[in-house]
Amino acid sequence: MIPETLCKSISYSIEAGGKRLRPVLLLAVMEAFGAKSEKGLDTACAIEALHTYSLIHDDLPSMDDDDIRRGKPTNHKVFGEAIAILAGDALLTMSFSFILDDSRLNAEEKMQVASLLSKSAGPAGMVAGQAEDMEAEGAELTKDQLEAIHDKKTGQLLQCSVVAGGILAGASAHELESLKRYAKHIGIAFQIQDDILDITGDQQTLGKPVGSDVSNNKTTYPALLGLDGAKEELFRHVAAAKHELAKLQHETAVLEQLADYIISRNH
Amino acid sequence: MIPETLCKSISYSIEAGGKRLRPVLLLAVMEAFGAKSEKGLDTACAIEALHTYSLIHDDLPSMDDDDIRRGKPTNHKVFGEAIAILAGDALLTMSFSFILDDSRLNAEEKMQVASLLSKSAGPAGMVAGQAEDMEAEGAELTKDQLEAIHDKKTGQLLQCSVVAGGILAGASAHELESLKRYAKHIGIAFQIQDDILDITGDQQTLGKPVGSDVSNNKTTYPALLGLDGAKEELFRHVAAAKHELAKLQHETAVLEQLADYIISRNH
Repeated sequence: MIPETLCKSISYSIEAGGKRLRPVLLLAVMEAFGAKSEKGLDTACAIEALHTYSLIHDDLPSMDDDDIRRGKPTNHKVFGEAIAILAGDALLTMSFSFILDDSRLNAEEKMQVASLLSKSAGPAGMVAGQAEDMEAEGAELTKDQLEAIHDKKTGQLLQCSVVAGGILAGASAHELESLKRYAKHIGIAFQIQDDILDITGDQQTLGKPVGSDVSNNKTTYPALLGLDGAKEELFRHVAAAKHELAKLQHETAVLEQLADYIISRNH
Repeated sequence: MIPETLCKSISYSIEAGGKRLRPVLLLAVMEAFGAKSEKGLDTACAIEALHTYSLIHDDLPSMDDDDIRRGKPTNHKVFGEAIAILAGDALLTMSFSFILDDSRLNAEEKMQVASLLSKSAGPAGMVAGQAEDMEAEGAELTKDQLEAIHDKKTGQLLQCSVVAGGILAGASAHELESLKRYAKHIGIAFQIQDDILDITGDQQTLGKPVGSDVSNNKTTYPALLGLDGAKEELFRHVAAAKHELAKLQHETAVLEQLADYIISRNH
């Protein structure tokens, strides 16, 4: 049984909403390949749980020290630091249970997806991204350095979602490569739009404070390329993502719409 | 690639030593069942990595706020809280990679062991134990309540080590039950000896401050049963652990010695 406070803390962050982009991507890939998306539900939950753990830990006072997330006080603001750390630990651990105990997957599928998840989230993936992002605060980064940090911090898990959908739908190695490149491009596009919204968005719609990149001395795409240059770069990556989809002989309309959504989103 | 500071922080805690009780138990079970212990090496590393993550997070200022571990400054004292949290996150994530990417195991073995690990370490296991242990500070617990907390906080992962060794050695369901009870008894015995050493040990040998249970208002076995009563309870559990071993038709001499070691250990 899960202790009451811990359970409330976990539920609080899971139920805080968010775009659910990672699970949606996974399920959309499965449907594009003609597979039943039900088969991917537990893996989709696993990836969302793991993403939520990363937000809880990143928001901690010793990390990014954020008070607001998804329009609500951050987990540690409500439950305290200790429970917030444990809720993150629990979500990370649970994400593997979700996949490994999923009766809809065979042993080979579980292993492939869980192994991909642990690599994407581990010390050479998402955790590395957070460490490098904090170390880089105040430093002037080149565009390549910025892209490398974002690739780890958010890109790897996005790629994991898309590729996991492909694995569960029985995609070929060649198709998985295209899917991975699609995910890579929308991951970068997503980050550029994040940076743009931090300048042009409003707190109410975004659900988090604007202008935090400047106040945290973070290198951003608009800072490197100017606002128009950043928008151009954004469109370039969305086009490249669609180009990858065109190589697949599948029903990729929804995946195209998801790429377009990244440009049009205002939160 | 793992960022340099993160890598140093992970290595610092892994190389700080410790008894390596969990990996030793796993490998000893495999040898007792006549299996080659090499097959269990990566799983043993996974469990030790996961155990080390739990120590790093438990020591954090917002948790148990400990400065010394294994005779050395705790991870956050050396690397700061942010990197300590990330090093713990990394070790937890890596522990699943170690098992899932182990070429010596087949898909079924990987799944069983990784699933057991995630359950033992998750929000109804080890993480629950830490949450309940913190909540219980200052409260007067009964022996049953104390045992239930320790079962989650340290017992589950010890049981996971022993049962994983059995799984990898091809033990029957019946044998796995005996192994689990053996582990349960030595887990409790281990905790009782921990509580006794907190009173009778010395900091130099223990590698951590003595008397911390009293100063942290923690319920302990000596507090509930007196020092002699606690020692009796310790011997009772070690005898019960050996009784379980006697049911197995295997070479359990090393596992018996490990049970005895718990009584004789002074750190």
